[in-house]
Amino acid sequence: MKRIAIDMDEVITDATGRHIEWYAEEFGQVIDRSSFHGKRFYMAVPEEHRDTVRAYPHREGFFKDMTMMEGARDVILDLSKEYEIFVVTAAMEFRNSFVHKYDWLQEHLDFISWKNYVFCGDKSIIEADYLIDDLEKNLKPFKGEPLLFTATHNMNLKDYPRYNNWQEIRAKFLS
Amino acid sequence: MKRIAIDMDEVITDATGRHIEWYAEEFGQVIDRSSFHGKRFYMAVPEEHRDTVRAYPHREGFFKDMTMMEGARDVILDLSKEYEIFVVTAAMEFRNSFVHKYDWLQEHLDFISWKNYVFCGDKSIIEADYLIDDLEKNLKPFKGEPLLFTATHNMNLKDYPRYNNWQEIRAKFLS
Repeated sequence: MKRIAIDMDEVITDATGRHIEWYAEEFGQVIDRSSFHGKRFYMAVPEEHRDTVRAYPHREGFFKDMTMMEGARDVILDLSKEYEIFVVTAAMEFRNSFVHKYDWLQEHLDFISWKNYVFCGDKSIIEADYLIDDLEKNLKPFKGEPLLFTATHNMNLKDYPRYNNWQEIRAKFLS
Repeated sequence: MKRIAIDMDEVITDATGRHIEWYAEEFGQVIDRSSFHGKRFYMAVPEEHRDTVRAYPHREGFFKDMTMMEGARDVILDLSKEYEIFVVTAAMEFRNSFVHKYDWLQEHLDFISWKNYVFCGDKSIIEADYLIDDLEKNLKPFKGEPLLFTATHNMNLKDYPRYNNWQEIRAKFLS
């Protein structure tokens, strides 16, 4: 059985949505996703707010109860019948994320065992056939086949086969 | 640079010592290590205490401020000059262990970046040249070279090259 490693933030969970939500709560303005096309979220806000915004993932609760990306559960469930699935997230950067990420996976992807969760920093440590991820820094050192999952910040990246949504991931693996 | 993955409990930290300490506090008896040679700690206590003891790692604080195994820091520090070191621990079994393990590593092995921590369940996901571990269930699926680190419970295991302490690990890699 071939093994697919799947990143969490921006692939399974909508971390950008959390940024937009917290920024709107704090500064009263809803930032439209089109305004940071090809850039990170913090680049779309006034310069004096950037440090605040960049610190959001370090604040308690950022990773709690995140919205799931459309179609993620259904497709991962179907993939799990024909592939070995590991959720591989660079959680180590955020000490406050561990229990929230664990609880999220237990609740929303209950068909995946905790044995198949990986919290790491550097994804070159991952032994898998495929890695679905939104960040070049994770895909580049990976030794298997890399799949770029589209996120607003990676729109201009050309070096990896791109998958725009979970239906395209389904078509790649289950057609 | 070759990569060494190192398990945490019973290899870097003395989890058996924590079991002995908590059992002595709760039941007033210090269990000698010789009494569970070749067995897990819980097998050395009266049958009516076994469920209690087996639940210790799930209790809050079990993984906090553990004692370091003798020589671990010095040898890992020296290894880190010639090898890439990852600490790879099956933390996922214990939701309450995450922050305590993270804090322990930050405090006691401050020369290793958080990028090189891995909290996982199944160690077959680990891409490394060597794995130092006390458990056969971790060494068996590992694709690199397995090194068995001696612990009371694995005294009878014959299938892996055995290292009895950190000085023997040093001799293997730095002689």
